[in-house]
Amino acid sequence: MRYNNLDETSVYGRLTGVAKAYSAFDFRQRLNAARVAASSIPIADTLVYNWAAKKVDDDVITLLQTLADEQELTAKYRALLDGEVMNTGENRRVLHHLLRGQLGKDVIVGGKNVGEFYRKELDRLSAFACDVRAGGIKSSGGKQFTHAVQIGIGGSDLGPRALYIALENWAQKEGIKPQLTAKFISNVDPDDASAVLNSVPLEATLFVLVSKSGTTQETLTNELFVRDRLKKAGLDAGKHFVAVTSETSPLARNSAYMDSFYIDDFIGGRYSSSSGVGGVILSLAFGPAVFKEFLQGAHEADRNALERDIRKNAALLDALIGVWERNFLRLTFTAVLPYSQALSRFPAHLQQLDMESNGKRVNRNGEQVLYATGPVVFGEPGTNGQHSFYQLLHQGTDTLPLQFIGFNDSQLDDDIVVDGSTGMTKLKANLAAQIVAFAKGEDNENPNKQFPGGRPSSLIYGKRLTPRALGALLAHFENKVMFQGFVWNLNSFDQEGVQLGKILTKKVLSGDSGDDALDAYSRLLGCL
Amino acid sequence: MRYNNLDETSVYGRLTGVAKAYSAFDFRQRLNAARVAASSIPIADTLVYNWAAKKVDDDVITLLQTLADEQELTAKYRALLDGEVMNTGENRRVLHHLLRGQLGKDVIVGGKNVGEFYRKELDRLSAFACDVRAGGIKSSGGKQFTHAVQIGIGGSDLGPRALYIALENWAQKEGIKPQLTAKFISNVDPDDASAVLNSVPLEATLFVLVSKSGTTQETLTNELFVRDRLKKAGLDAGKHFVAVTSETSPLARNSAYMDSFYIDDFIGGRYSSSSGVGGVILSLAFGPAVFKEFLQGAHEADRNALERDIRKNAALLDALIGVWERNFLRLTFTAVLPYSQALSRFPAHLQQLDMESNGKRVNRNGEQVLYATGPVVFGEPGTNGQHSFYQLLHQGTDTLPLQFIGFNDSQLDDDIVVDGSTGMTKLKANLAAQIVAFAKGEDNENPNKQFPGGRPSSLIYGKRLTPRALGALLAHFENKVMFQGFVWNLNSFDQEGVQLGKILTKKVLSGDSGDDALDAYSRLLGCL
Repeated sequence: MRYNNLDETSVYGRLTGVAKAYSAFDFRQRLNAARVAASSIPIADTLVYNWAAKKVDDDVITLLQTLADEQELTAKYRALLDGEVMNTGENRRVLHHLLRGQLGKDVIVGGKNVGEFYRKELDRLSAFACDVRAGGIKSSGGKQFTHAVQIGIGGSDLGPRALYIALENWAQKEGIKPQLTAKFISNVDPDDASAVLNSVPLEATLFVLVSKSGTTQETLTNELFVRDRLKKAGLDAGKHFVAVTSETSPLARNSAYMDSFYIDDFIGGRYSSSSGVGGVILSLAFGPAVFKEFLQGAHEADRNALERDIRKNAALLDALIGVWERNFLRLTFTAVLPYSQALSRFPAHLQQLDMESNGKRVNRNGEQVLYATGPVVFGEPGTNGQHSFYQLLHQGTDTLPLQFIGFNDSQLDDDIVVDGSTGMTKLKANLAAQIVAFAKGEDNENPNKQFPGGRPSSLIYGKRLTPRALGALLAHFENKVMFQGFVWNLNSFDQEGVQLGKILTKKVLSGDSGDDALDAYSRLLGCL
Repeated sequence: MRYNNLDETSVYGRLTGVAKAYSAFDFRQRLNAARVAASSIPIADTLVYNWAAKKVDDDVITLLQTLADEQELTAKYRALLDGEVMNTGENRRVLHHLLRGQLGKDVIVGGKNVGEFYRKELDRLSAFACDVRAGGIKSSGGKQFTHAVQIGIGGSDLGPRALYIALENWAQKEGIKPQLTAKFISNVDPDDASAVLNSVPLEATLFVLVSKSGTTQETLTNELFVRDRLKKAGLDAGKHFVAVTSETSPLARNSAYMDSFYIDDFIGGRYSSSSGVGGVILSLAFGPAVFKEFLQGAHEADRNALERDIRKNAALLDALIGVWERNFLRLTFTAVLPYSQALSRFPAHLQQLDMESNGKRVNRNGEQVLYATGPVVFGEPGTNGQHSFYQLLHQGTDTLPLQFIGFNDSQLDDDIVVDGSTGMTKLKANLAAQIVAFAKGEDNENPNKQFPGGRPSSLIYGKRLTPRALGALLAHFENKVMFQGFVWNLNSFDQEGVQLGKILTKKVLSGDSGDDALDAYSRLLGCL
């Protein structure tokens, strides 16, 4: 396998040259019904990627195919699936796809079949969730659990939280019972844990402690906060806690928990929603069958991402268009704009997924790269964003690539007709209108009302936001980020950039920071 | 008054020249205890701005003072306070400061004293909120209101929602009773309204309809959705609704509402949190005295922003350092990082405030500008963000200016000691550590563990997030954005960029979009 920097590829110069002549790309000429119809690629059975409003033509796509081939993107993906050590810095395999189904060889590590291990843990957590939901496992006071609170941060929080919010209304409409209410405690700010605990019936709440290492400062602090509260309420904390962790962590096989569910070092935090990290809380809330539907959707998207032809591989094309925009058109950051209130926290999860994976300035060999890598990602649901930051997106001095997401049907199917259309129809009309407004703009003799257009976007759409569609959506972005990491020749699976802050924090807390500026800031904040 | 573009100022060339030589700015040499101690400016009685970790020295600050003087920034602010028409495109005054207190001349429009009008409306909404809270005004079924739901979008949603979340725990700790639970419906996605209505006791819920024009598509659709639900529940909708609107809107003096509270065209949506738009819901939830404390904090910050000397004017210095970073150091977008879970939605409000105000490519005369204007703003609370996107901030290929916010004390004062420190102390230690880590970085022989540093940040800090501190925080950013708009010679008070999408949406809904690409997208989404 070749591991070259992007600017070492033979096609890099050609893409640079084409991009220079590309300012003339005119959506008003090019973006028509035929192009929209011809620009859809399935992500999975439930979800489609459409790139009609991206600034690419056939020539560029052909060059991007060459780039994909030269950087061996799908071959690297296959190697990753087969268990090659892709997280080189930490000497780890990268196996989150295997949580959803097997697409590569059996991965055997230390005599253990990793796929079997993942399947066994899924079975165990499913059985546990069924028991809790059926009332077989009860609280220390003998009550049926009605609430589940996850304690975790980063990858142990953002993904599971976004997924729970995404499915809450769907599950209600489907009549899934019981539906445990899930909440999340993440921040070391004590107001976070305190407020969540004030909002749940402690005696009927099950806590899911999630930390792969078992040493995360915020999570352990919050655990003790919760245990203290349980004790004060006269409850037996041990009967209110389960853990999701690695088998080598201090939390494993620890009698302080009713049970522990395991992941391993091959599941990165931001890729762990498909493991027990997401699986325990989602299975408690909605039942294991819903979580397995979610995994199935992700698995479909994973399979589609194997296709070498970028005209048939949505994640690959999305990744490469992103590289085209960032490195050649030199567009800046990316806004993710779901026209679905249920996806309100999905952009926050994508922030971690993308920015922690590819926000790197050295390649997998530790050499500094001379091109831009991962972009900043941010977003809020539409139509809310339209009344907020879209002004800058339409008329600001920077052009940002946009990622729209939309669905044909609502989740709750509770709607009324106002002025001849439902709320859902209005939502979709707004979405379609924005894509075209950003692309084509509009001339006006008043320059303040002039819309330059030329602002590219893509659209991911499906019939309805179901668990299966949600799994496909998540996997699409995971695979997109993976392919971009391969293009940029990064290790997308470590996060050394989070370490320095942890070290300096410990120094402050130890009372000997060794830096007088740090002491001065600590004094300002009253922690010295 | 002179209205020149930034690049027409005499100091522009000098700043450009200085910036070129500025890459050598070395925080490891410069950032020490003395600089931290010398770099604080009060924003108000309750809040301080510290710029020690910004890439500026005395020479740059002196040049920025020259820029402030040349662009007549505080003189323009005074003109705005005195009622000059600063929203030139729409021929409107800009008077949101007057909601908090009077700093300029009496503003008389059409014989009416605008300040008196604002004070009268504040008195009216305060009296109404007191009546509701005391049980004098009851629901149609004779119940005391326990919940208030605001229906609004954009400026009628983001600010009030962020402020409510910011004060919810504080109010609980202070023992404020009754505390009405507030919720918000904004999106035209019907799942938003449906889910909120499923979560409140309809018979004890008061709805606050907020639309200045009285014609906002999303808001009117959601109003009818709610009225339909109230009717189906056998409730008299008229006794569950109040309106916040302008006196010329169709909602004014309309018997469909128990009462209406008025704003006028001089209060822009994103600047309306200090009016009835924020005032009714906050006064219902926490009582009018709390809302008035909030206004007082904002007023203090407004007064401090009058100071001509940028070394004494936090909003002015913050604004000018932002211009220095964006236009001269050519740093990209801005992350807002509150180390306070209560401020979890504050960055979303700042997104609108900043990006809708200054995301413009033409100056106030409608001429295209040739320099970067308003940046993208995004953020999540710390320490959560540390486990998410900070990787890119520390080690990515872009340098982003950072805005930290922190407090000495928690809101709920419910905390425990773990490993020798409280959660609050850990939170603050993390914040101090991050500032220094971003600024100074750290050398490591492993390039993957190398932190380049040189990443500038500022810190806003206070003793505790109280209503008064929150008011000062909001006003600080409003005034910063205003000053930056003056520097860039923009009209920060209109938002023409939101119009095209509205027009195209109406065309889709009318069935005659006039654009075959738009029809094709509508078909994909199932709304044709």
